[in-house]
Amino acid sequence: MKTRAAVAFEAKKPLEIVEVDLEGPREGEVLVEIMATGICHTDAYTLDGLDSEGIFPSILGHEGAGIVREVGAGVTSVVPDDHVIPLYTPECRQCKSCLSGKTNLCTAIRATQGKGLMPDGTSRFSYKGQQIFHYMGCSTFSNFIVLPEIALAKIRTDAPFQTSCYIGCGVTTGVGAVVNTAKVQVGDNVVVFGLGGIGLNVIQGAKMAGAGLIVGVDLNPDREEWGRRFGMDAFINGKGKSREEVIAEVLALTDGGADYTFDCTGNTEVMRTALEACHRGWGTSIVIGVAEAGKEIATRPFQLVTGRNWRGSAFGGAKGRTDVPKIVDWYMNGKIQIDPMITHVLSLDEINKGFDLMHAGESIRSVVVF
Amino acid sequence: MKTRAAVAFEAKKPLEIVEVDLEGPREGEVLVEIMATGICHTDAYTLDGLDSEGIFPSILGHEGAGIVREVGAGVTSVVPDDHVIPLYTPECRQCKSCLSGKTNLCTAIRATQGKGLMPDGTSRFSYKGQQIFHYMGCSTFSNFIVLPEIALAKIRTDAPFQTSCYIGCGVTTGVGAVVNTAKVQVGDNVVVFGLGGIGLNVIQGAKMAGAGLIVGVDLNPDREEWGRRFGMDAFINGKGKSREEVIAEVLALTDGGADYTFDCTGNTEVMRTALEACHRGWGTSIVIGVAEAGKEIATRPFQLVTGRNWRGSAFGGAKGRTDVPKIVDWYMNGKIQIDPMITHVLSLDEINKGFDLMHAGESIRSVVVF
Repeated sequence: MKTRAAVAFEAKKPLEIVEVDLEGPREGEVLVEIMATGICHTDAYTLDGLDSEGIFPSILGHEGAGIVREVGAGVTSVVPDDHVIPLYTPECRQCKSCLSGKTNLCTAIRATQGKGLMPDGTSRFSYKGQQIFHYMGCSTFSNFIVLPEIALAKIRTDAPFQTSCYIGCGVTTGVGAVVNTAKVQVGDNVVVFGLGGIGLNVIQGAKMAGAGLIVGVDLNPDREEWGRRFGMDAFINGKGKSREEVIAEVLALTDGGADYTFDCTGNTEVMRTALEACHRGWGTSIVIGVAEAGKEIATRPFQLVTGRNWRGSAFGGAKGRTDVPKIVDWYMNGKIQIDPMITHVLSLDEINKGFDLMHAGESIRSVVVF
Repeated sequence: MKTRAAVAFEAKKPLEIVEVDLEGPREGEVLVEIMATGICHTDAYTLDGLDSEGIFPSILGHEGAGIVREVGAGVTSVVPDDHVIPLYTPECRQCKSCLSGKTNLCTAIRATQGKGLMPDGTSRFSYKGQQIFHYMGCSTFSNFIVLPEIALAKIRTDAPFQTSCYIGCGVTTGVGAVVNTAKVQVGDNVVVFGLGGIGLNVIQGAKMAGAGLIVGVDLNPDREEWGRRFGMDAFINGKGKSREEVIAEVLALTDGGADYTFDCTGNTEVMRTALEACHRGWGTSIVIGVAEAGKEIATRPFQLVTGRNWRGSAFGGAKGRTDVPKIVDWYMNGKIQIDPMITHVLSLDEINKGFDLMHAGESIRSVVVF
């Protein structure tokens, strides 16, 4: 079949909207019509050539929501007309990682996904006879996509696509890092570095978890209002401040340091600040942001020996098929907000504008509606 | 009163055995006769001038056992003739840290202890009228010492001083890192980097906790036999091997990486290896070793985002007054061994020989008996 898609033919070039060829689902695979997709920093990171493992030509996008249109042989967990969110972190429920109960990082299809291919080692996309690669196992910048069934979370049918697509990455990554990875408890002080699409979701996750003081740190003063909207209690404008100065402000606000800090910037210097702003003895810093290839984090080991913990979170520690439907419920029941974060709604033809808005810091989230 | 002590008059010089003046205990303080003291790498670290916060002249030593001889006003938790282990990490049970229940890093006397002084800001030691500094709140290289009562663990009177002094640092640091910090569970795979006095205690702690495979890594092949004696199942000789090679060996032995790794070397490169040898998704690396001043640890943040945890442990996460008596029980009940680790017993006059043996890698632990 044919489908419209925004194709990344090469790095550092705008996406091109073309009609590509899509093969139907093979065994264990599902054809999904994407109804809406968010544009995330990770897409920009790959498009800008910063990801050393980025592959082109490919169809980017990993934050979508849609409807099952066809299922391949052996598919049992979804049927046509089911509403679904594609999962760049699948949940096979059979690999060592899934069975451990200690991580969401399913390894069932990791090897082929990293190569831009389906689990059988081939691509379903092509353009003028040339193979186009999948991206993060999703490629939601295409109107129709094929995924393995283990990479689909079935969600309730009354959730709007335009907002629930954001649960496919940003919402789950932020809220989940609080709930699943940090397991923030009532009264814990939380500091969030970077108040973009992830950071604001960390804030509302912390609010939902009953955190004590919630502090936001950003270089952009406009983000203070955004943070307060979702539960932030105090704002630190880090612009022009040294690491020591920011840490001193955090320590003053939190009586000695944060119980939990979250890096939502991808900047390795900020990651260090976030660790060192933790309370001696027990503070935990969680790295969420994706750093540029080759960049490293560093600190004195004394920071760890005196009781600070350095951890990370991918996809909010969420087991996609199990946890994503719950987060959709939280949204539909009003426990978390999404609508105000969707600042721009675009057509597929306008998708490059979404990247421009992100780079300019003007959007929290732009969503493309098909 | 007078007491014999090994004094560090300056860095990088041998200790001098002299008779120093010791003031009696003030309010809340206790006079202890030290019966035996271990010689630890941390003493050598300070004596060698590697600790940027080292203060001279001072009386080193922080791993002792002795008998209470006199108590100052207001002391309620110990009486003369009690057997005690001095605590360089005290337990006041009243500060924010103690009350948190989340750390052993009591802050009650941290400021003055770091300056080589008693909590009232003075020293009890002097020599020819010149003030001599305390060290780590202990100074167990003196036959008699004065400490705050919150820095004394009362232990059973049938425990031999010559071996139980080792619980004042090495045993508790190693065993405690497993039991209190990592909380290793039955079947967990454990990798220990550095099989000296701390690493061997990590091994026996892991054995006691019912760990699965226990792997030791060292550059000295003689340490393989030592490791096996305390429960090590496999040995990796790291000599001449790259980080990647050591990690590959660990991953092969542990089906993908360790559940817990422990750095007992103080080498920041080894700390990185220990982190990256952890299992994706859940592995935790615990830094125990003390690094040289100014050295930093580094890794790609991807290591954390994909589920590895970087933590540290000081004094084995043990709350001294509460936990040290239990570890003495474990020793007396045969759950852990100490006797074979005490490879050399020296008189105070021979104390510099103990440092030589340590530097030559010939001792596991030298103990000075008064």
